[in-house]
Amino acid sequence: MNKPNPFENIRVALSHTTHPGNIGAAARAMKTMGLRHLYLINPRHFPDPQANAMAAGADDVLQNAVVCGSIDEALQGVAYTVAMTARLRDISIAVKTPREAMPIVVQEASQHPVALLFGTEMSGLTNEEMGKAQLGVNIQTNPDFSSLNIAASVQVVAYELSVAAHSYELVTAEVQPAAHERVEGLYAHLEKALFEMGFFTTQNPTRLMQRLRRLYSRARLEDEEINILRGILTVATAYNARLKQRYMEEHPHDKGNS
Amino acid sequence: MNKPNPFENIRVALSHTTHPGNIGAAARAMKTMGLRHLYLINPRHFPDPQANAMAAGADDVLQNAVVCGSIDEALQGVAYTVAMTARLRDISIAVKTPREAMPIVVQEASQHPVALLFGTEMSGLTNEEMGKAQLGVNIQTNPDFSSLNIAASVQVVAYELSVAAHSYELVTAEVQPAAHERVEGLYAHLEKALFEMGFFTTQNPTRLMQRLRRLYSRARLEDEEINILRGILTVATAYNARLKQRYMEEHPHDKGNS
Repeated sequence: MNKPNPFENIRVALSHTTHPGNIGAAARAMKTMGLRHLYLINPRHFPDPQANAMAAGADDVLQNAVVCGSIDEALQGVAYTVAMTARLRDISIAVKTPREAMPIVVQEASQHPVALLFGTEMSGLTNEEMGKAQLGVNIQTNPDFSSLNIAASVQVVAYELSVAAHSYELVTAEVQPAAHERVEGLYAHLEKALFEMGFFTTQNPTRLMQRLRRLYSRARLEDEEINILRGILTVATAYNARLKQRYMEEHPHDKGNS
Repeated sequence: MNKPNPFENIRVALSHTTHPGNIGAAARAMKTMGLRHLYLINPRHFPDPQANAMAAGADDVLQNAVVCGSIDEALQGVAYTVAMTARLRDISIAVKTPREAMPIVVQEASQHPVALLFGTEMSGLTNEEMGKAQLGVNIQTNPDFSSLNIAASVQVVAYELSVAAHSYELVTAEVQPAAHERVEGLYAHLEKALFEMGFFTTQNPTRLMQRLRRLYSRARLEDEEINILRGILTVATAYNARLKQRYMEEHPHDKGNS
């Protein structure tokens, strides 16, 4: 039986990269450590001769790069997303060091697609983007100069991955996590249902959804669990909708603000 | 007694660097990890605007860089020299991984000056240069693409130094799990709410509650999360009840089996 190569399941996703040279340097950093799947979310310039110049022989990584119009497109089919962050703590997810996190990434990648998500040069990832991840990773830097180049971050993470992969043992997980788009589908359904129920009249929707994302992302939802939760939401709102409709039929001039 | 900062005793020495951009990128990589002493042995172009452009704010490292005419000049006063090598074995010295070597470097640097020696972009260090070192360090790379940029090598080594130096206790966003009885209170509320919504007409209640317990127990629910989830259940059932009551008032003879 062949041992699967977990690196085949790992994609590096760069969000809104400004300088094409950084994309090339990131591709080179990836390839030196054996990573080859690059996803680019709305890069400012790509393809670009500067990217190829900085790739210095990792042109195949650039050539096969998948350019995406949204983060959800880049995370299609992914079951575990790790987001780079400059913060040591985050409202929505746990934050670990590369050394702590990369053995987990190798383990996850032995079972399903994994994404490593890097933000823009200037401001990193948005809160919305962070909310798509199951784990944050912080590279500790000089407090007086934390200006880690994006390709340098990719290099450090890819290096830690390489070290972790050489000492990796397959352990089967008890949970079979659902793909990214299924989980996002649940969040959208949940938000809509809460809105319909009038829950957001007393709660801040953005903050509440962040809290709920944090909760469910810790749980690593399975497909069947998503089905159950969405089933509950459907029943809750369908019953409401049915009663409301019936009431409205009887009171055509009432606006239904019960 | 002040603990001496071992990084003050560490110099990064780049030998015969061809591209000034690499010198700037190396300075940036050093500074992000708290290193600041740069020695340049016969650089082809220095100072150079490209070096400053790539330093991206680490200009002070470039400004204070010591340009030397020979390796011996760069190693003046140094008691322990570590040489980067692409080879896993070397005729003259022991070769270790960065992870093995950097704790040694920190240890040495707490006592006397230490140099980290990097060769040229094309061919690395000469045998003569290697002979000046006490230890070789090899960053393991993809056998099919070992083209590690010099600034990327500096980044990996400086990162490992930083990890070794701070006995690195990063506080992760720990979950504060709620007490047992709070979690049980949620399950009871959930079961009651699902019953009221009519969810159990199509689902086996025992099995469904088992599934939901499994999900939420994986998440290790916090107190505030339990409050949010119970808030949602309260709103959902109150909304239903309100609509139902209003309908019943208008249809006193209807059993409400809508």
